[in-house]
Amino acid sequence: MSDSMLAVVKAAPAPGADVRQVAVPSFGPADVLVKVKVASVCGTDLHIYKWDQWAQGRIHPPLIPGHEFCGHVAAIGSEVTTVKEGDFVSAEMHVACGKCYQCRTGEQHICQNVKIIGVDANGAFAEYVVIPETNIWKLDSSIPEEYASILDPLGNAVHTVLAGEIAGRTIAITGCGPIGLFSIAVARASGATKVFAIDVNEHRRKIAEQMKADFVLDPTTQDAFSIVMDQTNGVGVDVVAEMAGKTDAIRLGFQVLRRGGRMSLLGIPSRPVELNFADDIIFKGALVQGINGRVMYKTWYQMTALVAAGKLDLHPVITDRMAMKNFSQGMERLQTGEASKILLYPNGRM
Amino acid sequence: MSDSMLAVVKAAPAPGADVRQVAVPSFGPADVLVKVKVASVCGTDLHIYKWDQWAQGRIHPPLIPGHEFCGHVAAIGSEVTTVKEGDFVSAEMHVACGKCYQCRTGEQHICQNVKIIGVDANGAFAEYVVIPETNIWKLDSSIPEEYASILDPLGNAVHTVLAGEIAGRTIAITGCGPIGLFSIAVARASGATKVFAIDVNEHRRKIAEQMKADFVLDPTTQDAFSIVMDQTNGVGVDVVAEMAGKTDAIRLGFQVLRRGGRMSLLGIPSRPVELNFADDIIFKGALVQGINGRVMYKTWYQMTALVAAGKLDLHPVITDRMAMKNFSQGMERLQTGEASKILLYPNGRM
Amino acid sequence: MSDSMLAVVKAAPAPGADVRQVAVPSFGPADVLVKVKVASVCGTDLHIYKWDQWAQGRIHPPLIPGHEFCGHVAAIGSEVTTVKEGDFVSAEMHVACGKCYQCRTGEQHICQNVKIIGVDANGAFAEYVVIPETNIWKLDSSIPEEYASILDPLGNAVHTVLAGEIAGRTIAITGCGPIGLFSIAVARASGATKVFAIDVNEHRRKIAEQMKADFVLDPTTQDAFSIVMDQTNGVGVDVVAEMAGKTDAIRLGFQVLRRGGRMSLLGIPSRPVELNFADDIIFKGALVQGINGRVMYKTWYQMTALVAAGKLDLHPVITDRMAMKNFSQGMERLQTGEASKILLYPNGRM
Amino acid sequence: MSDSMLAVVKAAPAPGADVRQVAVPSFGPADVLVKVKVASVCGTDLHIYKWDQWAQGRIHPPLIPGHEFCGHVAAIGSEVTTVKEGDFVSAEMHVACGKCYQCRTGEQHICQNVKIIGVDANGAFAEYVVIPETNIWKLDSSIPEEYASILDPLGNAVHTVLAGEIAGRTIAITGCGPIGLFSIAVARASGATKVFAIDVNEHRRKIAEQMKADFVLDPTTQDAFSIVMDQTNGVGVDVVAEMAGKTDAIRLGFQVLRRGGRMSLLGIPSRPVELNFADDIIFKGALVQGINGRVMYKTWYQMTALVAAGKLDLHPVITDRMAMKNFSQGMERLQTGEASKILLYPNGRM
Repeated sequence: MSDSMLAVVKAAPAPGADVRQVAVPSFGPADVLVKVKVASVCGTDLHIYKWDQWAQGRIHPPLIPGHEFCGHVAAIGSEVTTVKEGDFVSAEMHVACGKCYQCRTGEQHICQNVKIIGVDANGAFAEYVVIPETNIWKLDSSIPEEYASILDPLGNAVHTVLAGEIAGRTIAITGCGPIGLFSIAVARASGATKVFAIDVNEHRRKIAEQMKADFVLDPTTQDAFSIVMDQTNGVGVDVVAEMAGKTDAIRLGFQVLRRGGRMSLLGIPSRPVELNFADDIIFKGALVQGINGRVMYKTWYQMTALVAAGKLDLHPVITDRMAMKNFSQGMERLQTGEASKILLYPNGRM
Repeated sequence: MSDSMLAVVKAAPAPGADVRQVAVPSFGPADVLVKVKVASVCGTDLHIYKWDQWAQGRIHPPLIPGHEFCGHVAAIGSEVTTVKEGDFVSAEMHVACGKCYQCRTGEQHICQNVKIIGVDANGAFAEYVVIPETNIWKLDSSIPEEYASILDPLGNAVHTVLAGEIAGRTIAITGCGPIGLFSIAVARASGATKVFAIDVNEHRRKIAEQMKADFVLDPTTQDAFSIVMDQTNGVGVDVVAEMAGKTDAIRLGFQVLRRGGRMSLLGIPSRPVELNFADDIIFKGALVQGINGRVMYKTWYQMTALVAAGKLDLHPVITDRMAMKNFSQGMERLQTGEASKILLYPNGRM
Repeated sequence: MSDSMLAVVKAAPAPGADVRQVAVPSFGPADVLVKVKVASVCGTDLHIYKWDQWAQGRIHPPLIPGHEFCGHVAAIGSEVTTVKEGDFVSAEMHVACGKCYQCRTGEQHICQNVKIIGVDANGAFAEYVVIPETNIWKLDSSIPEEYASILDPLGNAVHTVLAGEIAGRTIAITGCGPIGLFSIAVARASGATKVFAIDVNEHRRKIAEQMKADFVLDPTTQDAFSIVMDQTNGVGVDVVAEMAGKTDAIRLGFQVLRRGGRMSLLGIPSRPVELNFADDIIFKGALVQGINGRVMYKTWYQMTALVAAGKLDLHPVITDRMAMKNFSQGMERLQTGEASKILLYPNGRM
Repeated sequence: MSDSMLAVVKAAPAPGADVRQVAVPSFGPADVLVKVKVASVCGTDLHIYKWDQWAQGRIHPPLIPGHEFCGHVAAIGSEVTTVKEGDFVSAEMHVACGKCYQCRTGEQHICQNVKIIGVDANGAFAEYVVIPETNIWKLDSSIPEEYASILDPLGNAVHTVLAGEIAGRTIAITGCGPIGLFSIAVARASGATKVFAIDVNEHRRKIAEQMKADFVLDPTTQDAFSIVMDQTNGVGVDVVAEMAGKTDAIRLGFQVLRRGGRMSLLGIPSRPVELNFADDIIFKGALVQGINGRVMYKTWYQMTALVAAGKLDLHPVITDRMAMKNFSQGMERLQTGEASKILLYPNGRM
């Protein structure tokens, strides 16, 4: 193993990022060093790249971003017992403190002191990444590498869709970014009987159709509310998976939700949302869930089982594959709105 | 039985109400005629009296209001089998259609076509009221009449507090109208270990203290957020019961709610609420429940059991008792903010 | 409409049954008269036919059996509003009292006073059957008639499989009679990732393979325990659906259930079961559910949605179709163990 | 600190135990050394003392037993951060592996590889005991020492009673050993409206009355079934907490359980149980839960909150207090059936 490696580096508190040689990271006795095979790009990475308000408040350069990946174990710390060199792995990148109330009661996914690798510490847009053994997720070699690299966002979709009943139920997915698109697959595989995918972006709607949503709706040109109500006998959908993080999408979601239905909110609004609480939540008897990350590690078990059983076809979501050195081109593709999930190959071989 | 009876009548689409003689109502084969012993006044009755915007959109005069009461069965329809003349009863005043999706799946409390007696049909501010047998709730004679007359709002409190875990848990109650005050008693009886009662009104806070809330807070003069956090080791409360229906109270409720906590919303905001969904719901992993009415009839069984077992001391909430003919004086008392629950006696004897 | 109709009649407290002309039944104002298109045979019907101990204690001849069917509305009572002549329907044949604790709390499927049409009152093995409007289940004409006739046992399977999490989960189904076989389809459609079907009968195992169970096991010749444990990384299955009602099957089910897993018991043992409660339930932290009937009407909504969406292929289970007049031949087929679900056609046209 | 300490030692694979001087144990970097203030005796300790069949199969002498205690931190390992010398603590004595499926999904209380301190490793019947930091439970000094020493069995009661709804519900507790007796207090504090305590032993029933169970029944002389049914309007109890581990008690529990009720099984039968699964579980639609240990650490938070709030009066259960050197006398007291919970004082001062 060389002492240096290629990595994407957010070097300064300003827009952009470099791809350059840095030192291979050192690791502790409870850590695992992973040689990254494939990493994938998240909207968060674009926020960091563009250096927007959120990034300015959260990121401390220099930082290697990247929190979606798979690879093989290159080396292990002296206390590590559950994986060995060569194992095929991915990882949960939310590192919980293990000591707060939430961690002590099985809710590490909402830990008060969580650190995210790739956001708060150096991440996976590099040839090597260091992961605590607790957070390593060992994979069977039968799992396709492309899928193994996107388990983080797929886990968001699994967590959201399976946060309540879904079999024999109808679902509206508002927002068809990668997680919304994955949610179509998860809902279908889990027995959802009508899946409504709603997005304002034509490229996203096109992929939603490839994902076999039963109804793909453009709320800017179609009366999405009426179409959903017609298709549900005037009752509304049983479940809404909110993936857009936009006020309009959240409002539409509540409107199409049936009385007593479940609203699972994953998309993060960047500003306060004004909502008619009386009609949309209270009189409706709605159940509203804030969804964060992936349940450790229940979501990972369910997700891996679904992937291993061949229940999910996620290929339409993967629109771009490129060598990691071309990271900036990937950022541009993402900004056009034409790309969905972009895979990066640190060693340049796809 | 006389042919006429005294009743409060909202005679015209304008502020005010009359107390006058009207015909004793006729009833059908599946109905029960109840001679009202005690009725109690709800904030809804004040809306109707003042003829505010909500009332103008919902109420069709002439109407006898009143939806909280107890009394004795005066006569039964030919098909009625579960009660007989003389039985002591109260009633669920939300009459569900029985045929919509929600009714067919055990959620009559959020029926799409609900009619409320006292709002959509003549109610209990009268010597007699007609109730469908399905909605009659038979009471043991050991239940005090005063308590029997307030089961409707007590049921709101029971539904809200018991909509999730409460034993060994902390709870903040935002808004100390009668339902909020009842919630203190229900929470204490159900094992809540710290009850925070929060209200801007001094009279209400005084009663909250009599109800033995562990902490009674005035958010206009105290740093309620810091006090709650200090008392919960910085974690926040496990449960919030939102009874105020005001934006400030809702926001404070979400702020003091711990990660993964339960926010049960019962108070009805009269206008849209602007909230930081990202921090207050999503990252927090909050569970938000819209609470409506009483679960038919689970809430009634639990509530009756709690009352019959002597687990609830509700007396401090009952601030006023008066003959029904003095209804307008009751409305004035309510508007001063000094009265909490007002009991009306149709026959004038208290 | 003729005054008489063909029906299967259990005329006397003895083995056997007649097929003969009887009067078309009269019906009340809240009833629906249905012209039966297809009826299907349940194991219960065989108990009645053979006049075994259970039948002797429960059945009061003369009786027309049959509780699985579909047909079209022939006439409605004067108070019926939700269906009209010609509508395609099936029905929930458990008629709940509506007044007991369970009925009043949304658990009509475990009503204290349930009457079963086809067991306690004349049923569907006839040209016409009378059903209370409350129990009629209206169907879209797109639902295949064959499937519409088996919704009762399919509902048992849906109730059982969906009584907890199933997506991304493994399940063992012990007992592959029709309900066990349907459960394979329901589990697969709902995202179960490994389905183990276990039965001692070769014919049943053959159909289980056609239903695409992932593993079909014969516990008399295979080490079912070891196979299940191997396939679940030594953890055991997440869910067991017990459909056999035999001590050996129940014990095997508990053995293969993982710690913290769900054991859903539907099969009815005819005698007491001896079980190692310490290891199989308590130390294991198992959740054991008694499953009865179909949840009214949640199960019906979910089931209908799954069928209408084309999520279930049930054809392999339907092994025999015959004119109703040949009922006794059907009973013989059932006793050989070669037939699974037998469909009967009252009018002789298949 | 001296190098040696007094301890109860099970020195050989035979009945009895010694109290003698042994070396103060060494501890690792993640461990906490606790100076025991009060320890309490469990039925398990009697099994070990008597060297019965279970003990012979599980215990590997020499062993210091004892798994219920409180004390103060005497020293901490180099990696310990959450407690410091002098802190008042108790501990969860089930040490979970942290790596099995159950541990990885928040169910450490049913860990596949659990080790119990005091059973599988040296325990708390000694002046000092070593506990991993993860398992230490820090206590406020306001918690009474006597209560702090019995949190382990109190936690069993809290886990059992709070494993589902209890407020406004009726409960039968079958078996009034210490955990059954604690369950009376927990149920009352959590809003149970009728508590039936059932035991064959007169001493236990006497304490059950002191714990204020609403009905204390002797099934050998009273018709417990009829009494419970009479007191529940013929419906049966909502919840049964089974604490006896005897076939008769389990059967009675199922008989008095209402349809759709919850049966929480904690008592460990020493041999297989024969039960009428058809009537007692399946037709009844019962929910049966195997209860094991305490949920880590949800149960501990709830239990501590209840104790700190003064919601539980547990004094009647503590029947004996003695210096630890008199351990054998404690064992004899326990065998008479007259003692309930016995507290031991390692330093001899009570």
